[in-house]
Amino acid sequence: MSDTVSDTIAKLRREVCQLHEQLTRWELITWTSGNISARVPGADLLVIKPSGVSYDELTPESMVVTTLDGNVVDGNHSPSSDTDAHAYVYRAMPHVNGVVHTHSAYATAWSARGESIPCVLTAMADEFGGEIPIGPFALIGGDDIGKAIVATLTGHRSPAVLMRNHGVFTIGASAKAAVKAAVMCEDVARTVHIARSGGELVPIEPQHIDALYERYQGVYGQR
Amino acid sequence: MSDTVSDTIAKLRREVCQLHEQLTRWELITWTSGNISARVPGADLLVIKPSGVSYDELTPESMVVTTLDGNVVDGNHSPSSDTDAHAYVYRAMPHVNGVVHTHSAYATAWSARGESIPCVLTAMADEFGGEIPIGPFALIGGDDIGKAIVATLTGHRSPAVLMRNHGVFTIGASAKAAVKAAVMCEDVARTVHIARSGGELVPIEPQHIDALYERYQGVYGQR
Amino acid sequence: MSDTVSDTIAKLRREVCQLHEQLTRWELITWTSGNISARVPGADLLVIKPSGVSYDELTPESMVVTTLDGNVVDGNHSPSSDTDAHAYVYRAMPHVNGVVHTHSAYATAWSARGESIPCVLTAMADEFGGEIPIGPFALIGGDDIGKAIVATLTGHRSPAVLMRNHGVFTIGASAKAAVKAAVMCEDVARTVHIARSGGELVPIEPQHIDALYERYQGVYGQR
Amino acid sequence: MSDTVSDTIAKLRREVCQLHEQLTRWELITWTSGNISARVPGADLLVIKPSGVSYDELTPESMVVTTLDGNVVDGNHSPSSDTDAHAYVYRAMPHVNGVVHTHSAYATAWSARGESIPCVLTAMADEFGGEIPIGPFALIGGDDIGKAIVATLTGHRSPAVLMRNHGVFTIGASAKAAVKAAVMCEDVARTVHIARSGGELVPIEPQHIDALYERYQGVYGQR
Repeated sequence: MSDTVSDTIAKLRREVCQLHEQLTRWELITWTSGNISARVPGADLLVIKPSGVSYDELTPESMVVTTLDGNVVDGNHSPSSDTDAHAYVYRAMPHVNGVVHTHSAYATAWSARGESIPCVLTAMADEFGGEIPIGPFALIGGDDIGKAIVATLTGHRSPAVLMRNHGVFTIGASAKAAVKAAVMCEDVARTVHIARSGGELVPIEPQHIDALYERYQGVYGQR
Repeated sequence: MSDTVSDTIAKLRREVCQLHEQLTRWELITWTSGNISARVPGADLLVIKPSGVSYDELTPESMVVTTLDGNVVDGNHSPSSDTDAHAYVYRAMPHVNGVVHTHSAYATAWSARGESIPCVLTAMADEFGGEIPIGPFALIGGDDIGKAIVATLTGHRSPAVLMRNHGVFTIGASAKAAVKAAVMCEDVARTVHIARSGGELVPIEPQHIDALYERYQGVYGQR
Repeated sequence: MSDTVSDTIAKLRREVCQLHEQLTRWELITWTSGNISARVPGADLLVIKPSGVSYDELTPESMVVTTLDGNVVDGNHSPSSDTDAHAYVYRAMPHVNGVVHTHSAYATAWSARGESIPCVLTAMADEFGGEIPIGPFALIGGDDIGKAIVATLTGHRSPAVLMRNHGVFTIGASAKAAVKAAVMCEDVARTVHIARSGGELVPIEPQHIDALYERYQGVYGQR
Repeated sequence: MSDTVSDTIAKLRREVCQLHEQLTRWELITWTSGNISARVPGADLLVIKPSGVSYDELTPESMVVTTLDGNVVDGNHSPSSDTDAHAYVYRAMPHVNGVVHTHSAYATAWSARGESIPCVLTAMADEFGGEIPIGPFALIGGDDIGKAIVATLTGHRSPAVLMRNHGVFTIGASAKAAVKAAVMCEDVARTVHIARSGGELVPIEPQHIDALYERYQGVYGQR
């Protein structure tokens, strides 16, 4: 491993470790149920949470480095049991540098009905550019989940997919962007659930969704 | 800029920055989704949150000062992408000195159905003097949102408006008063949602709403 | 005022102030919406929260001492705008030494439908000995609310009453006991709401409610 | 009592005391409503929470040691009023070393309808291996609750049972494992409730539930 890659990995261990605090802060996880990974730029590697370790015990050193086939190359722990899915996404989607998986309650509730979340909020148009799609049921182990994520998100603006009867996977140009998508996914899953439980939703017209999405990708935040 | 105005701006930077802690404390925001502004008395200026900055990174210095046309006159950050709406309200409503915008979940859920919140709680009569009205759908950018806020709140006692498919804007004689209205708006949006999801609401008679509103404006709190 | 009464008041100022932390900890309040009082034993006085002061600014000194007619005898603040209701309860119910008022969300939701909460949980049988009753609509100011509380709770085991379209009042042999009743009232209001929103409730037989209530009053906790 | 048993008890007092923090952290309890116990290996004893003591006042010393008939052998406090149920489980199920009891809101809501929670989430298949079963109504005092827990869980994969109109009991090979089951029980009770309140649930095929359960028991976490 070159010095540059070593330095990058050390930085990503700290970053991925710290980002897990956001899963706790936004109440996306229960016990040890969610995980974050980052691609190591310039190497066919990823950095991911260790399996079954509680969030307040995570340290940069406990993060696990694996190949994009999920084989551990650095670290004293077993990697997340979802590593195969993360790895498949990195192999198939070169523009993705971060992946997040949660069982956040409201998003997972939509998944237990096999339903996409309709786009009825401007914040949803901003971040997801339309509905959050539902993917198929897939068993853990091997590439089934990874393939289903990629198949569902290809051709969609949404960085989030609801995996049926399971939970959420989000992707991003960085691990932080994928975390933001996971946080916003639960937020809109909750608000749209509450909204629909009280009566009929008002749709947003498609051209307005387009306008909101394009504007948000361009001008929001600091340059 | 006169010394007096400079001192006032320095004070408002601290005040607006600190008030954002209330959005977090009362769980009105997700990621970076809400913002507060204050009018600068004696100048055609406002102080507002920077765009896309997380709440725990806000400092008085990161607040942005703009004209009432939304042009930045002081600050190193881009202002909130909702600045146009805040600015329009200050131009159109001289008695308003604070504006708050959130996507708080229950209030936004009512907005996704295009529904006003009926006044069935004494606390709602106290603070809002009746229903919390629904405004139209309006796209961000330019004055459309500002105009819709002003058109909906003019002639209403309510300091809060639900913008359709979007979220909440509140106004106040001070930024703190607008924050209080945003906090109470989510509280009553939640309680009335829960109430109606369990059966039929009992209305409060209009003359009782009037009596509660008048009393509360007069005698609540410390002199 | 005798030295003994002064010492008692000083102790109750600290106690009532600290108990307000429980309203925050159990999320029973929003902004400044709930209040606690204690009777001063051996004097026709009560100690109560000041009006409109936020919970993190409360100090023992800011508590207000009033007569049982609601007239301030000690303190630099205006007393809670609900003081009349607290005072009426102390005048009418000599066994009551603590009163709590909140607008906690789930309990208030039942009140907005004018519904009692049916006793379908053993924890509810323990603490309330049956349903939590609904009282009538009553306007703030004067004795209307106090009279309605007393009329509804007289002859009931429940230390909590839902005031229609308003919120909760609880009573206890101490301020702490009334706080516990307010905490448990919201807990069962929430659980029973959730339960009923998913289907038909299973009742508990009256003789089992009696057995649970009698046992709990006798053997729970430390001697 | 041998020195070894004394050391074990001292260790379990600390462990059981600390585990109660998880009931608070995951919001499974209200006021003093939940309790944890551990079997003392090599002795017919258990360590349990004292009755009616709040979670922030618990210390290792305040834990109570009883026989498996519920008689106190060490400790200055009265044991949990649920001690009989815990003790019965340890007598009847030799593989169980930890028991947890809560009234967590969503799980208790299912119990108030007398309903099992159907297995529609992969996380539920992982931890519970199928539905979470409902047990009968049983009165506190004596062995009725213990017998009902054992009768319902015998022959089930689930480490959790919903006791009708009451709450949750969970068992585990350690107190920590029983706590994890209590945490996950509330999590899935909530997610499945939310899911079903929005429409029809999609079932998971029985062979998939089996595959998930077997994999999770084998490979999750650190070796």
